[in-house]
Amino acid sequence: MLRTHTCGELRLTDINKQVTLSGWVQKSRNLGGMTFIDLRDRYGITQLAFNEDVNKELNAKARNVSREYVIQVTGTVIERESKNKNNPTGEIEIQVTHFTILNEAQTPPFTIEDNTDGGDELRMKYRYLDLRRNEVRKNLELRHRMAIEIRNYLDKLNFLEVETPVLIKSTPEGARDFVVPSRMNAGQFYALPQSPQTFKQLLMVGGFDRYYQIVKCFRDEDLRADRQPEFTQIDCEMSFVEQKDILETFEGLVRHLFKTVKNIDMPHVPHMTYSDAMTYYGNDKPDTRFEMKFVKMNDVVAGKNFKVFDDAELVVAICAKGAAEYTRKQLDELTEWVKRPQIGATGLVYARHNPDGTIKSSVDKFYDEESLKAWSVACNSEPGDLILILAGAEEKTRKAMSELRLEMGSRLGLRDKTKFSALWVIDFPLLEWNDGDPNLLASLAGRWHAKHHPFTSPNPEDIALLQTNPGVVRANAYDLVINGVEVGGGSIRIHNRDLQAQMFELLGFTKEEAQKQFGFLMNAFEYGAPPHGGLAFGFDRLCSLFGGSDSIRDFIAFPKNNSGRDVMIDSPSEISDEQLKELNILSVIEAK
Amino acid sequence: MLRTHTCGELRLTDINKQVTLSGWVQKSRNLGGMTFIDLRDRYGITQLAFNEDVNKELNAKARNVSREYVIQVTGTVIERESKNKNNPTGEIEIQVTHFTILNEAQTPPFTIEDNTDGGDELRMKYRYLDLRRNEVRKNLELRHRMAIEIRNYLDKLNFLEVETPVLIKSTPEGARDFVVPSRMNAGQFYALPQSPQTFKQLLMVGGFDRYYQIVKCFRDEDLRADRQPEFTQIDCEMSFVEQKDILETFEGLVRHLFKTVKNIDMPHVPHMTYSDAMTYYGNDKPDTRFEMKFVKMNDVVAGKNFKVFDDAELVVAICAKGAAEYTRKQLDELTEWVKRPQIGATGLVYARHNPDGTIKSSVDKFYDEESLKAWSVACNSEPGDLILILAGAEEKTRKAMSELRLEMGSRLGLRDKTKFSALWVIDFPLLEWNDGDPNLLASLAGRWHAKHHPFTSPNPEDIALLQTNPGVVRANAYDLVINGVEVGGGSIRIHNRDLQAQMFELLGFTKEEAQKQFGFLMNAFEYGAPPHGGLAFGFDRLCSLFGGSDSIRDFIAFPKNNSGRDVMIDSPSEISDEQLKELNILSVIEAK
Repeated sequence: MLRTHTCGELRLTDINKQVTLSGWVQKSRNLGGMTFIDLRDRYGITQLAFNEDVNKELNAKARNVSREYVIQVTGTVIERESKNKNNPTGEIEIQVTHFTILNEAQTPPFTIEDNTDGGDELRMKYRYLDLRRNEVRKNLELRHRMAIEIRNYLDKLNFLEVETPVLIKSTPEGARDFVVPSRMNAGQFYALPQSPQTFKQLLMVGGFDRYYQIVKCFRDEDLRADRQPEFTQIDCEMSFVEQKDILETFEGLVRHLFKTVKNIDMPHVPHMTYSDAMTYYGNDKPDTRFEMKFVKMNDVVAGKNFKVFDDAELVVAICAKGAAEYTRKQLDELTEWVKRPQIGATGLVYARHNPDGTIKSSVDKFYDEESLKAWSVACNSEPGDLILILAGAEEKTRKAMSELRLEMGSRLGLRDKTKFSALWVIDFPLLEWNDGDPNLLASLAGRWHAKHHPFTSPNPEDIALLQTNPGVVRANAYDLVINGVEVGGGSIRIHNRDLQAQMFELLGFTKEEAQKQFGFLMNAFEYGAPPHGGLAFGFDRLCSLFGGSDSIRDFIAFPKNNSGRDVMIDSPSEISDEQLKELNILSVIEAK
Repeated sequence: MLRTHTCGELRLTDINKQVTLSGWVQKSRNLGGMTFIDLRDRYGITQLAFNEDVNKELNAKARNVSREYVIQVTGTVIERESKNKNNPTGEIEIQVTHFTILNEAQTPPFTIEDNTDGGDELRMKYRYLDLRRNEVRKNLELRHRMAIEIRNYLDKLNFLEVETPVLIKSTPEGARDFVVPSRMNAGQFYALPQSPQTFKQLLMVGGFDRYYQIVKCFRDEDLRADRQPEFTQIDCEMSFVEQKDILETFEGLVRHLFKTVKNIDMPHVPHMTYSDAMTYYGNDKPDTRFEMKFVKMNDVVAGKNFKVFDDAELVVAICAKGAAEYTRKQLDELTEWVKRPQIGATGLVYARHNPDGTIKSSVDKFYDEESLKAWSVACNSEPGDLILILAGAEEKTRKAMSELRLEMGSRLGLRDKTKFSALWVIDFPLLEWNDGDPNLLASLAGRWHAKHHPFTSPNPEDIALLQTNPGVVRANAYDLVINGVEVGGGSIRIHNRDLQAQMFELLGFTKEEAQKQFGFLMNAFEYGAPPHGGLAFGFDRLCSLFGGSDSIRDFIAFPKNNSGRDVMIDSPSEISDEQLKELNILSVIEAK
């Protein structure tokens, strides 16, 4: 070892020990005849002291190292005169007697500090330097700790971690697949898994009973800020269970993680139907750290000749507690905010419930004091509250109000990143109509699309509706939502060949297509498939939630940018003609 | 839950309990008015009893289920009359009161027994049924247990598990890459990692100090029996270490695994140079469960007018203890064995050291009693031993003798799969000459090729030889070999830009190529790269070794066949023109 101790472990009890440390120069200070270097490694920072009077040559050498040089020093642990109580090693320093430069360093393009001067682009290009920063390293340490605790919990419950293949078969009925040309099977391609879904179901057919895997998955999507082409799932499946068994088991996992990783006692996780989530929060992943539920106002506001409300499919209000103090300027700004294209509302109506009990609205010419009292009753407002109302087409208005609710939550400080509120959303619709989702192949438009995936079991009560009114069939599916983030989701699966075949038919597969793509699974169902179900958590997102960040990228060691590029290694990149030829493909771009 | 207990947990202490079990019908027996079903799940087998006198209808129903039906039963735990001491649940049975068929099953194409009647091909196609067999499941349970223990050990030593990307950049200087066309970056490709090598080195540059990952890797090779296109590595890296630190740390890991998984106290792992391994075993991964070392005989046998020996570049012997009893027939058969094309020897010379002390050889007309005494002294043979000699061109003869030694070890029962002998092979050559390796791109032939990989550090004493005689430069590299299987390998890495550039030059890269492919790593070395090194274990192989099997396929849930196909899901397969078009590629086969 090029060290006897790390830079984080020496204390007053180590005084007079001869030690060797290795690490990076965080900074150095020259004070007359003395030089001090802060030596950094993953474990901490230790101060090195050089004294010109003791060793002139060594002191001169120490003065010549710059930030981020890698050095090795040997010396004696001594007590510091001016102690630094903020640093665990701050009571000691090393009186250096030997000094070796292990590697030099150019001046880094940004400072290796908690608050760096490097922008996003630069930090991505030099990710290996960004990784030296405390904050980034702590995020990845958290991720490591969470993975350990996930495995501890599941292992104790007899789950087996089984690796499923990465080179599988393209079944692009979900999002787009990444594909891999096969050199040995000319003209054919593997695909990278969007999830190990079919394999974990086959493990259940194979009697594995309880399976999990922390596993990379791939989705060739047009990326958004919080998406990565490769991402990690905690993928789980159980046999001989009903929905409640799965919810209990994985509520247990989440509580275990909160307890062991953050020392938080998570209360029981409530259940909410999809329908209620949409009605009260306009969103299937409501942030329940705060109430501010939707109030449908159509009946309350009707008949006062205010055309905007009378003509609206939906008039919906929220009551922002204690926001009656908002100034006209703030309210104007909020009105502009909801009118931005991302939100898309046409306007905002508000009513102040003043501290003196009076109510004043922005549409007083249509609504008298009495009408506004009815608003207040409907919204359960109290003096000091602010009622905000949007109106228009149902889906659009609900979406806009959901955004406004979150925005008000943020403005009112109700979305504290150190508080956590979880819920299970259940009874999702089984299907949704695809009228041209850009993340799906164009050929799939104008069809029913499985909201979760084609293997999700319909609610048994609704099976008859599959034939007559598929859009209202509820799925035996559930999502775990924490602080408005969809952290995981899953379902009880179909385990019957006929029902699975019916499902594929509903999704527009011909019998032949279904057999060609998923025949192996349907065949498996004929050899004794047990009832089973499971779920998958988005591990990147779960980590970012635990770490109090909105970005999963902060919790991935080497993330890609929004164009799917790794700017550090400069990938993707062109490959040689020799490679293309061996793989039996032509690049259309090259061919042009 | 569709059960209160598993099929493996009920005992005499549970008598009179009302229980519900779910599982598969292993077999059923009709005995007059009684029907017995063995109900199986992952945890065991429990006997179900149906009595016509108690419930005629239930008994009739029970008679109608076949093998592999999935059923749920409720009943009372009762003591069995005829107990089965070989089954942990064999003292009880369930007197069934309720019975539900959860799913029917066709007759499986092979029996779900320890000794199945299914051939390899059939078992692969119906892998989900093969997984129900005890043996296959036990292999994967072992794999799970090993992964848990690996993480336990490394976590305690402050290693962080960090996930590195799967979509990386093609650098086909090693084996061939699998590539992935990028839809969003037309004409460009990602590659799947052959190992996370450069990323783990960047983690060291990033100050992560100790990294590991149990990770899928990919190599587009022409497959052999024991290779898979995707395989799993235990990938590790440490900073501020020398070779001995790495050997100690990972010897510790292997000892921990042997102790916790197999309750074996592994002795200290000896070191052997590559040169000694080749001299004494003709092989850089010697099976050291038995001695039978090579003895170079050129000098001993010279000058007796036996042209075959006199003209040979290498004459080499092994002494097979206690094999003097081999009959003429056995020796003829062994001679045929070494002459097979896979072994390639031209003949076999032997000398029996008879129990009475006389020595008789197959070339007695050239070698008298005295000469043969000299053979015996050289080979350290004793009465009862058999000396076997091969002669010819050095490399070929060494290889043939290595095979013969292993064969004799097997025939003499010296390769017990329950005994384990490990060693570190060190001081590998840095480079080898590529005269047309079929697993490399053809354009790389006629060049030096890195024996481990281009990031391996030369032995510091040999650096000057890089310029003058690169073929003899030793690498700071090491392999862990157990029972003749290369279980892992690694090296101290280059951490200096100039040395890395020199290495690429030696491997035939132009400056531009080196910069284009590995510029990110060489740049990283300029910002304070610490001395570092590591290794990777082949996890599939380590599991098969622990499981006492020669095939890694038995330890992979869904393996591919020797053509890289998954015959269960029928992959790789063709993809649609719509997909090809979006990915900006043409399939040459399709285009034809």
